[in-house]
Amino acid sequence: MKIKVIITLKNGVLDPQGKAIQQTLNGMNFKNISEVRQGKFFDIEINEADENKAKSQIDEVCKKLLANLVIEDYKII
Amino acid sequence: MKIKVIITLKNGVLDPQGKAIQQTLNGMNFKNISEVRQGKFFDIEINEADENKAKSQIDEVCKKLLANLVIEDYKII
Repeated sequence: MKIKVIITLKNGVLDPQGKAIQQTLNGMNFKNISEVRQGKFFDIEINEADENKAKSQIDEVCKKLLANLVIEDYKII
Repeated sequence: MKIKVIITLKNGVLDPQGKAIQQTLNGMNFKNISEVRQGKFFDIEINEADENKAKSQIDEVCKKLLANLVIEDYKII
């Protein structure tokens, strides 16, 4: 089963990379783009038929490895 | 209006970063994780009330700046 995870910076955490993208876009004449925030995306293939078990395992994976919970939030979709 | 974009590597394109994550997870006793592929996620704030117009503009942004269409696919959500 495939599980997708999105990891984003928490609100209030500075995102210089997203800021640079936003400024570049403004310079490319996309003037109405006021904010860009970049995050990470993971597509995980797990050998587990039960969706709830798979998701709870991925939750553990996020906490232990993928996300830095001090500055990041994660969402399993 | 907020628009989200997910950029993933096309199938068949090697993802050494994802592979490293998968091997690390296997070593951390998550034995049933058979593949990880990493992508990028963008949260874009655009000053445009019409959803269709906003999405078509973001489509252009993806083609011109965010995605490398030779090796990546993008999805606007």
